[in-house]
Amino acid sequence: MGPVHLQDSKEATVARLLDMLREAHGRGARWVTFPELALTTFFPRYVYDDPADYDRFYEEGLPSPAMAPLFEEAKKLGIGFYLGYAEKVTEGGAVHRFNTSVLVAPNGDILGKYRKIHLPGTKDPIGDPEFEHLEKRYFEVGNLGFPVFQSPIGRVGMCICNDRRWPETFRTMALRGAEVFMLGYNTPTRNIHHNEPVHLREHHHRLSLESAAYQNGAWVLSAGKCGSEDGFAMIGGSSIVAPTGETVTRAVTEEDEVISYNCDLELGAYIRRSVFNFAKHRRPEFYGPITGQVGVEIEE
Amino acid sequence: MGPVHLQDSKEATVARLLDMLREAHGRGARWVTFPELALTTFFPRYVYDDPADYDRFYEEGLPSPAMAPLFEEAKKLGIGFYLGYAEKVTEGGAVHRFNTSVLVAPNGDILGKYRKIHLPGTKDPIGDPEFEHLEKRYFEVGNLGFPVFQSPIGRVGMCICNDRRWPETFRTMALRGAEVFMLGYNTPTRNIHHNEPVHLREHHHRLSLESAAYQNGAWVLSAGKCGSEDGFAMIGGSSIVAPTGETVTRAVTEEDEVISYNCDLELGAYIRRSVFNFAKHRRPEFYGPITGQVGVEIEE
Repeated sequence: MGPVHLQDSKEATVARLLDMLREAHGRGARWVTFPELALTTFFPRYVYDDPADYDRFYEEGLPSPAMAPLFEEAKKLGIGFYLGYAEKVTEGGAVHRFNTSVLVAPNGDILGKYRKIHLPGTKDPIGDPEFEHLEKRYFEVGNLGFPVFQSPIGRVGMCICNDRRWPETFRTMALRGAEVFMLGYNTPTRNIHHNEPVHLREHHHRLSLESAAYQNGAWVLSAGKCGSEDGFAMIGGSSIVAPTGETVTRAVTEEDEVISYNCDLELGAYIRRSVFNFAKHRRPEFYGPITGQVGVEIEE
Repeated sequence: MGPVHLQDSKEATVARLLDMLREAHGRGARWVTFPELALTTFFPRYVYDDPADYDRFYEEGLPSPAMAPLFEEAKKLGIGFYLGYAEKVTEGGAVHRFNTSVLVAPNGDILGKYRKIHLPGTKDPIGDPEFEHLEKRYFEVGNLGFPVFQSPIGRVGMCICNDRRWPETFRTMALRGAEVFMLGYNTPTRNIHHNEPVHLREHHHRLSLESAAYQNGAWVLSAGKCGSEDGFAMIGGSSIVAPTGETVTRAVTEEDEVISYNCDLELGAYIRRSVFNFAKHRRPEFYGPITGQVGVEIEE
Protein backbone atom coordinates (compact mmCIF):
# COMPACT_ATOMS: atom_id res chain seq x y z
CA MET A 1 0.00 0.00 0.00
CA GLY A 2 1.32 3.39 -0.92
CA PRO A 3 1.59 6.23 1.58
CA VAL A 4 -1.35 7.58 3.57
CA HIS A 5 -0.78 11.20 4.44
CA LEU A 6 -1.82 12.95 7.63
CA GLN A 7 -4.52 14.92 5.83
CA ASP A 8 -5.99 11.99 3.87
CA SER A 9 -9.56 11.19 4.87
CA LYS A 10 -10.38 7.67 6.01
CA GLU A 11 -13.01 7.54 3.27
CA ALA A 12 -10.40 8.14 0.58
CA THR A 13 -8.09 5.57 2.14
CA VAL A 14 -10.80 2.92 2.41
CA ALA A 15 -11.67 3.58 -1.26
CA ARG A 16 -8.09 2.57 -2.11
CA LEU A 17 -8.40 -0.59 -0.01
CA LEU A 18 -11.63 -1.39 -1.88
CA ASP A 19 -9.86 -1.00 -5.23
CA MET A 20 -7.16 -3.43 -4.15
CA LEU A 21 -9.74 -5.85 -2.74
CA ARG A 22 -11.52 -5.89 -6.10
CA GLU A 23 -8.30 -6.40 -8.02
CA ALA A 24 -7.37 -9.31 -5.74
CA HIS A 25 -10.81 -10.81 -6.25
CA GLY A 26 -10.42 -10.43 -10.00
CA ARG A 27 -7.29 -12.58 -9.78
CA GLY A 28 -9.14 -15.30 -7.91
CA ALA A 29 -7.79 -14.49 -4.47
CA ARG A 30 -9.69 -15.93 -1.52
CA TRP A 31 -7.99 -13.84 1.14
CA VAL A 32 -6.30 -10.44 1.34
CA THR A 33 -3.75 -9.15 3.85
CA PHE A 34 -3.80 -5.37 4.37
CA PRO A 35 -1.11 -3.40 6.27
CA GLU A 36 -0.80 -2.40 9.91
CA LEU A 37 -2.76 0.80 10.71
CA ALA A 38 -4.10 0.68 7.17
CA LEU A 39 -6.75 3.39 7.58
CA THR A 40 -4.44 6.26 8.55
CA THR A 41 -0.92 7.52 8.30
CA PHE A 42 1.57 5.91 10.71
CA PHE A 43 0.64 8.47 13.38
CA PRO A 44 2.98 7.20 16.17
CA ARG A 45 5.70 9.24 14.50
CA TYR A 46 3.97 12.40 15.78
CA VAL A 47 3.81 13.76 19.30
CA TYR A 48 0.35 14.43 20.75
CA ASP A 49 -0.52 15.01 24.37
CA ASP A 50 -4.28 15.34 24.34
CA PRO A 51 -6.48 12.37 23.38
CA ALA A 52 -8.74 14.90 21.67
CA ASP A 53 -5.90 15.39 19.18
CA TYR A 54 -5.28 11.71 18.42
CA ASP A 55 -8.66 10.06 18.95
CA ARG A 56 -9.41 10.52 15.26
CA PHE A 57 -6.82 7.87 14.34
CA TYR A 58 -8.65 5.12 16.28
CA GLU A 59 -11.61 2.91 15.40
CA GLU A 60 -14.41 2.00 17.79
CA GLY A 61 -16.67 -1.01 17.21
CA LEU A 62 -16.18 -3.72 14.61
CA PRO A 63 -16.73 -2.83 11.91
CA SER A 64 -16.20 0.82 12.76
CA PRO A 65 -18.09 3.27 10.53
CA ALA A 66 -14.94 3.95 8.49
CA MET A 67 -14.21 0.29 7.76
CA ALA A 68 -17.83 -0.78 7.19
CA PRO A 69 -17.67 -0.42 3.36
CA LEU A 70 -14.72 -2.83 3.30
CA PHE A 71 -16.58 -5.42 5.38
CA GLU A 72 -19.61 -5.13 3.08
CA GLU A 73 -17.72 -5.40 -0.17
CA ALA A 74 -15.58 -8.34 1.02
CA LYS A 75 -18.70 -10.23 2.10
CA LYS A 76 -20.33 -9.47 -1.25
CA LEU A 77 -17.27 -10.77 -3.11
CA GLY A 78 -16.89 -13.71 -0.74
CA ILE A 79 -13.29 -12.87 0.14
CA GLY A 80 -11.65 -13.00 3.57
CA PHE A 81 -9.18 -10.44 4.89
CA TYR A 82 -6.73 -9.27 7.57
CA LEU A 83 -6.87 -5.58 8.42
CA GLY A 84 -4.65 -3.57 10.76
CA TYR A 85 -6.11 -0.60 12.63
CA ALA A 86 -5.81 1.46 15.81
CA GLU A 87 -8.36 0.11 18.28
CA LYS A 88 -10.05 2.12 21.02
CA VAL A 89 -12.14 0.00 23.32
CA THR A 90 -13.76 0.17 26.73
CA GLU A 91 -13.01 -2.95 28.74
CA GLY A 92 -13.38 -3.37 32.47
CA GLY A 93 -14.76 0.14 32.76
CA ALA A 94 -11.65 1.78 31.31
CA VAL A 95 -10.59 2.98 27.88
CA HIS A 96 -7.81 0.95 26.26
CA ARG A 97 -5.92 1.50 23.03
CA PHE A 98 -4.24 -1.26 21.03
CA ASN A 99 -2.45 -1.69 17.70
CA THR A 100 -4.81 -4.36 16.40
CA SER A 101 -5.54 -6.60 13.44
CA VAL A 102 -8.80 -8.36 12.70
CA LEU A 103 -9.42 -11.51 10.70
CA VAL A 104 -12.68 -11.59 8.76
CA ALA A 105 -14.02 -14.67 6.96
CA PRO A 106 -15.40 -14.61 3.40
CA ASN A 107 -18.93 -14.84 4.81
CA GLY A 108 -18.35 -11.74 6.93
CA ASP A 109 -17.84 -13.54 10.24
CA ILE A 110 -15.24 -11.97 12.47
CA LEU A 111 -12.89 -14.85 13.28
CA GLY A 112 -10.88 -12.95 15.85
CA LYS A 113 -8.50 -10.17 16.74
CA TYR A 114 -4.82 -9.85 17.55
CA ARG A 115 -3.35 -6.99 19.57
CA LYS A 116 0.31 -6.19 18.95
CA ILE A 117 2.62 -7.51 21.65
CA HIS A 118 6.13 -6.41 20.65
CA LEU A 119 5.69 -2.63 20.64
CA PRO A 120 8.86 -0.87 19.50
CA GLY A 121 9.94 2.68 20.23
CA THR A 122 9.26 4.81 23.28
CA LYS A 123 6.47 6.33 25.35
CA ASP A 124 8.15 9.69 25.73
CA PRO A 125 9.49 11.64 22.75
CA ILE A 126 13.21 11.37 22.12
CA GLY A 127 13.16 14.95 20.87
CA ASP A 128 14.18 14.20 17.29
CA PRO A 129 11.14 14.52 14.98
CA GLU A 130 12.87 12.52 12.25
CA PHE A 131 13.12 9.44 14.45
CA GLU A 132 10.15 9.58 16.83
CA HIS A 133 8.44 6.20 17.13
CA LEU A 134 5.89 6.50 19.93
CA GLU A 135 4.00 3.23 19.80
CA LYS A 136 4.39 2.79 23.55
CA ARG A 137 2.66 6.17 23.99
CA TYR A 138 -0.40 5.36 21.93
CA PHE A 139 -0.86 1.64 22.55
CA GLU A 140 -0.85 -0.81 25.42
CA VAL A 141 0.90 -4.17 25.01
CA GLY A 142 -1.61 -6.60 23.49
CA ASN A 143 -3.51 -8.78 25.95
CA LEU A 144 -4.73 -11.57 23.66
CA GLY A 145 -1.50 -13.56 23.29
CA PHE A 146 -0.82 -15.09 19.87
CA PRO A 147 -4.12 -16.78 18.99
CA VAL A 148 -4.58 -18.97 15.93
CA PHE A 149 -7.88 -19.21 14.07
CA GLN A 150 -9.37 -21.95 11.93
CA SER A 151 -10.43 -20.39 8.63
CA PRO A 152 -11.54 -21.60 5.21
CA ILE A 153 -7.93 -21.24 4.02
CA GLY A 154 -6.34 -23.10 6.91
CA ARG A 155 -5.22 -22.23 10.42
CA VAL A 156 -4.18 -18.56 10.51
CA GLY A 157 -2.01 -16.74 13.04
CA MET A 158 -1.62 -12.96 13.04
CA CYS A 159 1.14 -10.61 14.05
CA ILE A 160 2.10 -7.00 13.45
CA CYS A 161 5.30 -5.29 12.28
CA ASN A 162 8.03 -5.56 14.97
CA ASP A 163 6.56 -8.91 16.12
CA ARG A 164 8.19 -10.43 13.04
CA ARG A 165 11.72 -9.84 14.32
CA TRP A 166 11.11 -12.16 17.30
CA PRO A 167 11.18 -15.87 16.51
CA GLU A 168 9.04 -16.52 19.59
CA THR A 169 6.09 -14.93 17.77
CA PHE A 170 5.98 -17.48 14.98
CA ARG A 171 7.01 -20.51 17.05
CA THR A 172 4.21 -19.86 19.54
CA MET A 173 1.65 -19.73 16.72
CA ALA A 174 3.13 -22.75 14.94
CA LEU A 175 2.86 -24.80 18.13
CA ARG A 176 -0.83 -23.90 18.05
CA GLY A 177 -1.06 -25.31 14.56
CA ALA A 178 -0.75 -22.19 12.39
CA GLU A 179 -0.27 -22.95 8.69
CA VAL A 180 -0.41 -19.33 7.51
CA PHE A 181 1.00 -16.22 9.18
CA MET A 182 -0.50 -12.85 8.25
CA LEU A 183 1.45 -9.72 9.02
CA GLY A 184 0.88 -6.01 8.44
CA TYR A 185 3.66 -3.49 9.01
CA ASN A 186 4.95 0.08 8.65
CA THR A 187 8.73 0.07 8.64
CA PRO A 188 10.59 3.37 8.30
CA THR A 189 13.44 3.34 5.83
CA ARG A 190 15.70 4.73 8.51
CA ASN A 191 16.13 2.77 11.72
CA ILE A 192 14.95 4.59 14.84
CA HIS A 193 18.26 3.54 16.37
CA HIS A 194 19.90 5.90 13.86
CA ASN A 195 23.22 4.54 12.70
CA GLU A 196 22.32 1.58 10.51
CA PRO A 197 22.94 1.34 6.75
CA VAL A 198 19.58 1.68 4.96
CA HIS A 199 20.01 -1.50 2.90
CA LEU A 200 19.86 -3.56 6.10
CA ARG A 201 16.22 -2.60 6.67
CA GLU A 202 15.07 -4.69 3.72
CA HIS A 203 17.57 -7.47 4.51
CA HIS A 204 16.26 -7.80 8.07
CA HIS A 205 12.65 -7.74 6.89
CA ARG A 206 13.34 -10.49 4.39
CA LEU A 207 15.44 -12.51 6.85
CA SER A 208 12.72 -12.36 9.50
CA LEU A 209 9.98 -13.50 7.12
CA GLU A 210 11.96 -16.20 5.35
CA SER A 211 13.31 -17.74 8.55
CA ALA A 212 9.84 -17.66 10.15
CA ALA A 213 8.34 -19.44 7.14
CA TYR A 214 11.11 -22.03 6.90
CA GLN A 215 11.51 -22.78 10.59
CA ASN A 216 7.78 -23.27 11.07
CA GLY A 217 6.78 -24.76 7.72
CA ALA A 218 4.18 -22.05 7.15
CA TRP A 219 3.20 -19.44 4.56
CA VAL A 220 3.81 -15.79 5.38
CA LEU A 221 1.55 -13.17 3.80
CA SER A 222 2.97 -9.74 4.55
CA ALA A 223 1.70 -6.28 3.62
CA GLY A 224 3.42 -3.02 4.46
CA LYS A 225 3.07 0.59 3.48
CA CYS A 226 5.64 1.94 1.04
CA GLY A 227 6.62 5.31 -0.34
CA SER A 228 6.81 8.49 1.69
CA GLU A 229 4.09 9.54 4.14
CA ASP A 230 4.53 13.32 4.42
CA GLY A 231 8.28 12.96 3.97
CA PHE A 232 8.71 9.83 6.10
CA ALA A 233 9.84 7.00 3.82
CA MET A 234 8.92 3.37 4.43
CA ILE A 235 10.57 0.23 3.12
CA GLY A 236 7.60 -1.46 1.46
CA GLY A 237 8.62 -4.91 0.29
CA SER A 238 5.20 -6.56 0.78
CA SER A 239 5.66 -10.21 -0.06
CA ILE A 240 4.47 -13.76 0.15
CA VAL A 241 6.97 -16.29 1.50
CA ALA A 242 6.64 -20.05 1.01
CA PRO A 243 7.26 -22.61 3.78
CA THR A 244 10.54 -23.35 1.98
CA GLY A 245 11.77 -19.94 3.13
CA GLU A 246 11.61 -18.55 -0.39
CA THR A 247 9.99 -15.24 -1.25
CA VAL A 248 7.66 -16.25 -4.08
CA THR A 249 6.25 -12.84 -4.98
CA ARG A 250 6.86 -9.29 -3.85
CA ALA A 251 5.71 -5.74 -4.49
CA VAL A 252 8.20 -3.47 -6.21
CA THR A 253 6.45 -0.11 -6.60
CA GLU A 254 6.07 2.74 -4.12
CA GLU A 255 2.30 2.85 -4.63
CA ASP A 256 -0.78 0.74 -4.07
CA GLU A 257 -0.04 -2.63 -5.60
CA VAL A 258 -1.63 -6.07 -5.42
CA ILE A 259 0.47 -9.24 -5.44
CA SER A 260 -0.94 -12.73 -5.35
CA TYR A 261 0.11 -16.37 -5.21
CA ASN A 262 -1.58 -19.75 -5.17
CA CYS A 263 -0.41 -21.04 -1.78
CA ASP A 264 -0.34 -24.82 -1.41
CA LEU A 265 -0.78 -25.74 2.27
CA GLU A 266 0.61 -29.23 1.64
CA LEU A 267 4.06 -27.73 1.04
CA GLY A 268 4.13 -26.57 4.67
CA ALA A 269 2.53 -29.75 5.99
CA TYR A 270 5.30 -31.75 4.35
CA ILE A 271 7.99 -29.70 6.07
CA ARG A 272 6.24 -30.05 9.43
CA ARG A 273 6.18 -33.82 8.97
CA SER A 274 9.89 -34.04 8.09
CA VAL A 275 12.68 -31.58 8.99
CA PHE A 276 10.47 -29.63 11.40
CA ASN A 277 8.49 -32.43 12.94
CA PHE A 278 8.21 -30.66 16.28
CA ALA A 279 6.94 -33.64 18.27
CA LYS A 280 9.88 -35.72 17.14
CA HIS A 281 12.74 -33.24 17.34
CA ARG A 282 12.06 -30.40 19.78
CA ARG A 283 13.69 -30.55 23.25
CA PRO A 284 11.83 -28.04 25.45
CA GLU A 285 13.59 -29.37 28.54
CA PHE A 286 16.64 -27.43 27.31
CA TYR A 287 14.81 -24.22 26.29
CA GLY A 288 14.06 -23.03 29.84
CA PRO A 289 15.45 -19.48 29.62
CA ILE A 290 13.11 -18.62 26.71
CA THR A 291 10.10 -18.51 29.01
CA GLY A 292 11.89 -18.54 32.35
CA GLN A 293 13.52 -15.13 32.02
CA VAL A 294 12.98 -11.86 30.17
CA GLY A 295 16.46 -10.43 29.66
CA VAL A 296 20.00 -11.80 29.63
CA GLU A 297 21.13 -13.52 32.82
CA ILE A 298 24.80 -14.38 33.19
CA GLU A 299 25.94 -17.03 35.64
CA GLU A 300 29.37 -16.13 36.90
CA MET B 1 37.24 -28.60 5.48
CA GLY B 2 37.40 -30.86 2.47
CA PRO B 3 36.15 -34.45 2.57
CA VAL B 4 37.46 -37.06 4.99
CA HIS B 5 37.13 -40.51 3.47
CA LEU B 6 36.30 -43.70 5.31
CA GLN B 7 39.84 -45.02 4.87
CA ASP B 8 41.66 -41.84 5.89
CA SER B 9 43.68 -42.23 9.09
CA LYS B 10 43.01 -39.88 11.98
CA GLU B 11 46.70 -38.95 11.89
CA ALA B 12 46.41 -37.72 8.29
CA THR B 13 43.21 -35.84 9.11
CA VAL B 14 44.69 -34.16 12.18
CA ALA B 15 47.69 -33.14 10.06
CA ARG B 16 45.24 -31.24 7.82
CA LEU B 17 43.66 -29.55 10.84
CA LEU B 18 47.17 -28.55 11.99
CA ASP B 19 47.89 -26.99 8.60
CA MET B 20 44.70 -24.94 8.80
CA LEU B 21 45.44 -23.96 12.41
CA ARG B 22 48.86 -22.65 11.36
CA GLU B 23 47.41 -20.74 8.42
CA ALA B 24 44.80 -19.13 10.69
CA HIS B 25 47.52 -18.21 13.17
CA GLY B 26 49.55 -16.69 10.35
CA ARG B 27 46.62 -14.39 9.62
CA GLY B 28 46.45 -13.25 13.23
CA ALA B 29 43.44 -15.35 14.22
CA ARG B 30 42.90 -15.82 17.95
CA TRP B 31 40.34 -18.60 17.63
CA VAL B 32 39.50 -21.34 15.10
CA THR B 33 36.22 -23.19 14.54
CA PHE B 34 36.61 -26.71 13.12
CA PRO B 35 33.72 -28.84 11.76
CA GLU B 36 31.45 -31.37 13.42
CA LEU B 37 33.05 -34.86 13.61
CA ALA B 38 36.21 -33.30 12.23
CA LEU B 39 38.48 -36.30 12.81
CA THR B 40 36.62 -38.83 10.66
CA THR B 41 34.25 -39.17 7.77
CA PHE B 42 30.58 -38.51 8.57
CA PHE B 43 30.14 -42.14 9.61
CA PRO B 44 26.41 -41.96 10.59
CA ARG B 45 25.66 -42.45 6.90
CA TYR B 46 26.79 -46.09 7.27
CA VAL B 47 25.02 -48.97 8.97
CA TYR B 48 26.96 -50.83 11.66
CA ASP B 49 25.53 -53.19 14.24
CA ASP B 50 28.52 -54.14 16.35
CA PRO B 51 30.28 -51.49 18.49
CA ALA B 52 33.52 -53.26 17.56
CA ASP B 53 32.91 -52.01 14.01
CA TYR B 54 32.23 -48.37 14.89
CA ASP B 55 34.25 -47.78 18.06
CA ARG B 56 37.17 -46.57 15.95
CA PHE B 57 35.24 -43.40 15.05
CA TYR B 58 35.01 -42.26 18.69
CA GLU B 59 37.44 -40.45 20.97
CA GLU B 60 38.01 -41.28 24.62
CA GLY B 61 39.57 -38.82 27.04
CA LEU B 62 40.31 -35.17 26.38
CA PRO B 63 42.53 -34.74 24.56
CA SER B 64 42.24 -38.19 23.06
CA PRO B 65 45.49 -39.58 21.62
CA ALA B 66 44.39 -38.63 18.09
CA MET B 67 43.64 -35.02 18.92
CA ALA B 68 46.60 -34.46 21.26
CA PRO B 69 48.85 -32.93 18.54
CA LEU B 70 46.17 -30.30 17.86
CA PHE B 71 45.91 -29.38 21.54
CA GLU B 72 49.68 -29.09 21.77
CA GLU B 73 50.16 -26.97 18.66
CA ALA B 74 47.27 -24.64 19.55
CA LYS B 75 48.70 -24.06 23.00
CA LYS B 76 52.10 -23.40 21.50
CA LEU B 77 50.65 -20.87 19.07
CA GLY B 78 48.37 -19.38 21.75
CA ILE B 79 45.22 -19.88 19.73
CA GLY B 80 41.84 -21.11 21.00
CA PHE B 81 39.58 -23.52 19.12
CA TYR B 82 36.26 -25.36 18.79
CA LEU B 83 36.50 -28.99 17.67
CA GLY B 84 33.71 -31.43 16.86
CA TYR B 85 34.24 -35.15 17.53
CA ALA B 86 32.44 -38.37 18.40
CA GLU B 87 32.68 -38.84 22.16
CA LYS B 88 32.69 -42.17 23.98
CA VAL B 89 32.55 -41.78 27.71
CA THR B 90 31.78 -43.84 30.79
CA GLU B 91 29.43 -41.97 33.10
CA GLY B 92 27.40 -43.45 35.93
CA GLY B 93 28.93 -46.83 35.26
CA ALA B 94 27.65 -47.02 31.68
CA VAL B 95 29.10 -46.25 28.28
CA HIS B 96 27.56 -43.24 26.52
CA ARG B 97 28.15 -41.87 23.06
CA PHE B 98 27.59 -38.24 22.07
CA ASN B 99 28.12 -35.97 19.07
CA THR B 100 30.28 -33.47 20.93
CA SER B 101 32.24 -30.25 20.56
CA VAL B 102 34.93 -28.96 22.89
CA LEU B 103 36.05 -25.39 23.48
CA VAL B 104 39.75 -24.98 24.26
CA ALA B 105 41.34 -21.71 25.39
CA PRO B 106 44.59 -20.31 23.92
CA ASN B 107 46.42 -21.40 27.07
CA GLY B 108 45.24 -24.98 26.61
CA ASP B 109 42.51 -24.90 29.26
CA ILE B 110 39.41 -26.87 28.36
CA LEU B 111 36.60 -24.35 28.82
CA GLY B 112 33.81 -26.86 28.33
CA LYS B 113 31.92 -29.27 26.14
CA TYR B 114 28.63 -29.28 24.28
CA ARG B 115 26.76 -32.45 23.32
CA LYS B 116 24.44 -32.20 20.33
CA ILE B 117 20.78 -31.94 21.29
CA HIS B 118 18.84 -31.81 18.00
CA LEU B 119 19.86 -35.12 16.46
CA PRO B 120 18.41 -35.56 12.97
CA GLY B 121 17.74 -38.77 11.10
CA THR B 122 16.79 -42.16 12.46
CA LYS B 123 17.98 -44.95 14.75
CA ASP B 124 17.04 -47.75 12.37
CA PRO B 125 18.16 -47.79 8.74
CA ILE B 126 15.59 -46.59 6.20
CA GLY B 127 17.03 -49.09 3.75
CA ASP B 128 18.26 -46.58 1.18
CA PRO B 129 22.08 -46.27 1.40
CA GLU B 130 22.02 -42.96 -0.44
CA PHE B 131 19.97 -41.31 2.28
CA GLU B 132 20.86 -43.07 5.54
CA HIS B 133 21.41 -40.61 8.36
CA LEU B 134 21.74 -42.63 11.54
CA GLU B 135 22.72 -40.07 14.18
CA LYS B 136 20.06 -41.41 16.53
CA ARG B 137 21.73 -44.83 16.26
CA TYR B 138 25.22 -43.70 17.18
CA PHE B 139 24.53 -40.87 19.62
CA GLU B 140 22.35 -40.11 22.60
CA VAL B 141 20.65 -36.72 22.89
CA GLY B 142 23.09 -34.36 24.58
CA ASN B 143 22.70 -33.96 28.33
CA LEU B 144 24.55 -30.69 28.93
CA GLY B 145 21.91 -28.23 27.70
CA PHE B 146 23.19 -25.16 25.83
CA PRO B 147 25.99 -23.86 28.07
CA VAL B 148 27.81 -20.60 27.44
CA PHE B 149 31.46 -20.11 28.37
CA GLN B 150 33.43 -16.98 29.21
CA SER B 151 36.52 -16.93 26.99
CA PRO B 152 39.26 -14.46 26.06
CA ILE B 153 37.24 -13.58 22.94
CA GLY B 154 33.92 -13.05 24.71
CA ARG B 155 31.08 -15.29 25.85
CA VAL B 156 30.87 -18.31 23.54
CA GLY B 157 27.96 -20.70 22.97
CA MET B 158 28.33 -23.90 20.94
CA CYS B 159 25.98 -25.91 18.80
CA ILE B 160 26.26 -28.57 16.12
CA CYS B 161 24.76 -28.93 12.63
CA ASN B 162 20.99 -29.50 12.80
CA ASP B 163 20.82 -27.41 16.02
CA ARG B 164 21.17 -24.34 13.80
CA ARG B 165 17.75 -24.86 12.20
CA TRP B 166 16.01 -24.38 15.56
CA PRO B 167 15.79 -20.79 16.79
CA GLU B 168 15.46 -22.06 20.37
CA THR B 169 19.13 -23.09 20.23
CA PHE B 170 20.45 -19.60 19.73
CA ARG B 171 17.88 -17.78 21.87
CA THR B 172 18.65 -20.01 24.83
CA MET B 173 22.37 -19.24 24.52
CA ALA B 174 21.77 -15.52 23.92
CA LEU B 175 19.70 -15.32 27.10
CA ARG B 176 22.77 -16.71 28.86
CA GLY B 177 24.80 -13.86 27.44
CA ALA B 178 26.42 -15.48 24.38
CA GLU B 179 28.16 -12.98 22.09
CA VAL B 180 29.62 -15.56 19.71
CA PHE B 181 28.06 -18.79 18.44
CA MET B 182 30.38 -21.53 17.15
CA LEU B 183 28.96 -24.23 14.97
CA GLY B 184 30.39 -27.26 13.19
CA TYR B 185 28.34 -29.22 10.66
CA ASN B 186 28.19 -31.91 7.97
CA THR B 187 25.26 -31.24 5.67
CA PRO B 188 24.60 -33.59 2.78
CA THR B 189 23.88 -31.89 -0.53
CA ARG B 190 20.74 -33.97 -0.85
CA ASN B 191 18.12 -33.72 1.87
CA ILE B 192 17.49 -36.97 3.73
CA HIS B 193 13.81 -36.23 3.20
CA HIS B 194 14.46 -36.79 -0.52
CA ASN B 195 12.35 -34.49 -2.63
CA GLU B 196 13.84 -31.05 -2.07
CA PRO B 197 15.58 -28.95 -4.73
CA VAL B 198 19.33 -28.97 -4.01
CA HIS B 199 19.70 -25.17 -4.08
CA LEU B 200 17.51 -24.94 -0.97
CA ARG B 201 20.16 -26.67 1.14
CA GLU B 202 22.47 -23.67 0.94
CA HIS B 203 19.57 -21.22 1.26
CA HIS B 204 18.37 -22.85 4.48
CA HIS B 205 21.89 -22.97 5.89
CA ARG B 206 22.39 -19.28 5.18
CA LEU B 207 18.91 -18.35 6.45
CA SER B 208 19.46 -20.22 9.71
CA LEU B 209 22.81 -18.59 10.40
CA GLU B 210 21.88 -15.07 9.34
CA SER B 211 18.61 -15.02 11.30
CA ALA B 212 20.36 -16.47 14.38
CA ALA B 213 23.02 -13.76 14.21
CA TYR B 214 20.57 -10.92 13.61
CA GLN B 215 17.89 -11.95 16.10
CA ASN B 216 20.42 -12.43 18.89
CA GLY B 217 22.95 -9.73 18.07
CA ALA B 218 25.80 -12.24 17.99
CA TRP B 219 28.57 -13.42 15.69
CA VAL B 220 28.25 -16.86 14.10
CA LEU B 221 31.41 -18.77 13.21
CA SER B 222 30.47 -21.84 11.20
CA ALA B 223 32.62 -24.60 9.75
CA GLY B 224 31.37 -27.50 7.69
CA LYS B 225 32.87 -30.22 5.56
CA CYS B 226 32.58 -29.79 1.80
CA GLY B 227 33.25 -31.86 -1.28
CA SER B 228 32.44 -35.52 -1.59
CA GLU B 229 33.24 -38.08 1.10
CA ASP B 230 33.39 -41.39 -0.76
CA GLY B 231 30.70 -40.19 -3.15
CA PHE B 232 28.53 -38.45 -0.55
CA ALA B 233 28.54 -34.72 -1.36
CA MET B 234 28.24 -32.05 1.31
CA ILE B 235 27.19 -28.42 0.96
CA GLY B 236 30.21 -26.70 2.50
CA GLY B 237 29.53 -22.97 2.78
CA SER B 238 31.59 -22.40 5.93
CA SER B 239 31.10 -18.77 6.85
CA ILE B 240 31.26 -16.02 9.40
CA VAL B 241 28.06 -14.04 9.96
CA ALA B 242 27.96 -10.63 11.62
CA PRO B 243 25.34 -9.62 14.23
CA THR B 244 23.76 -7.55 11.46
CA GLY B 245 22.70 -10.83 9.83
CA GLU B 246 25.21 -10.38 7.00
CA THR B 247 27.57 -13.11 5.86
CA VAL B 248 30.91 -11.31 5.95
CA THR B 249 33.14 -14.07 4.60
CA ARG B 250 32.63 -17.56 3.27
CA ALA B 251 34.53 -20.51 1.88
CA VAL B 252 34.06 -21.20 -1.82
CA THR B 253 36.22 -24.22 -2.59
CA GLU B 254 35.52 -27.93 -2.13
CA GLU B 255 38.77 -28.45 -0.23
CA ASP B 256 40.45 -27.45 3.01
CA GLU B 257 40.20 -23.67 3.18
CA VAL B 258 40.72 -21.07 5.89
CA ILE B 259 38.55 -17.95 6.10
CA SER B 260 38.98 -15.23 8.69
CA TYR B 261 37.44 -11.99 9.86
CA ASN B 262 38.14 -9.40 12.51
CA CYS B 263 34.95 -9.67 14.58
CA ASP B 264 33.99 -6.59 16.57
CA LEU B 265 31.95 -7.62 19.62
CA GLU B 266 30.63 -4.08 20.04
CA LEU B 267 28.58 -4.47 16.85
CA GLY B 268 26.55 -7.18 18.57
CA ALA B 269 26.41 -5.35 21.88
CA TYR B 270 24.90 -2.35 20.13
CA ILE B 271 22.14 -4.47 18.61
CA ARG B 272 21.40 -6.06 21.99
CA ARG B 273 21.08 -2.61 23.51
CA SER B 274 18.69 -1.36 20.83
CA VAL B 275 16.41 -3.42 18.55
CA PHE B 276 17.00 -6.62 20.49
CA ASN B 277 17.11 -5.29 24.00
CA PHE B 278 15.63 -8.45 25.46
CA ALA B 279 14.89 -7.05 28.93
CA LYS B 280 12.91 -4.19 27.40
CA HIS B 281 11.01 -5.93 24.62
CA ARG B 282 10.57 -9.65 25.25
CA ARG B 283 7.18 -10.88 26.54
CA PRO B 284 7.73 -14.43 27.87
CA GLU B 285 4.24 -14.44 29.41
CA PHE B 286 2.97 -14.99 25.86
CA TYR B 287 5.58 -17.60 24.79
CA GLY B 288 4.23 -20.42 26.94
CA PRO B 289 3.91 -23.15 24.28
CA ILE B 290 7.62 -22.92 23.43
CA THR B 291 8.58 -24.64 26.67
CA GLY B 292 5.16 -25.89 27.74
CA GLN B 293 4.71 -28.38 24.90
CA VAL B 294 6.82 -30.41 22.50
CA GLY B 295 4.67 -30.78 19.40
CA VAL B 296 1.70 -28.98 17.88
CA GLU B 297 -1.41 -28.81 20.06
CA ILE B 298 -4.62 -27.59 18.48
CA GLU B 299 -7.45 -26.28 20.62
CA GLU B 300 -10.73 -27.04 18.91
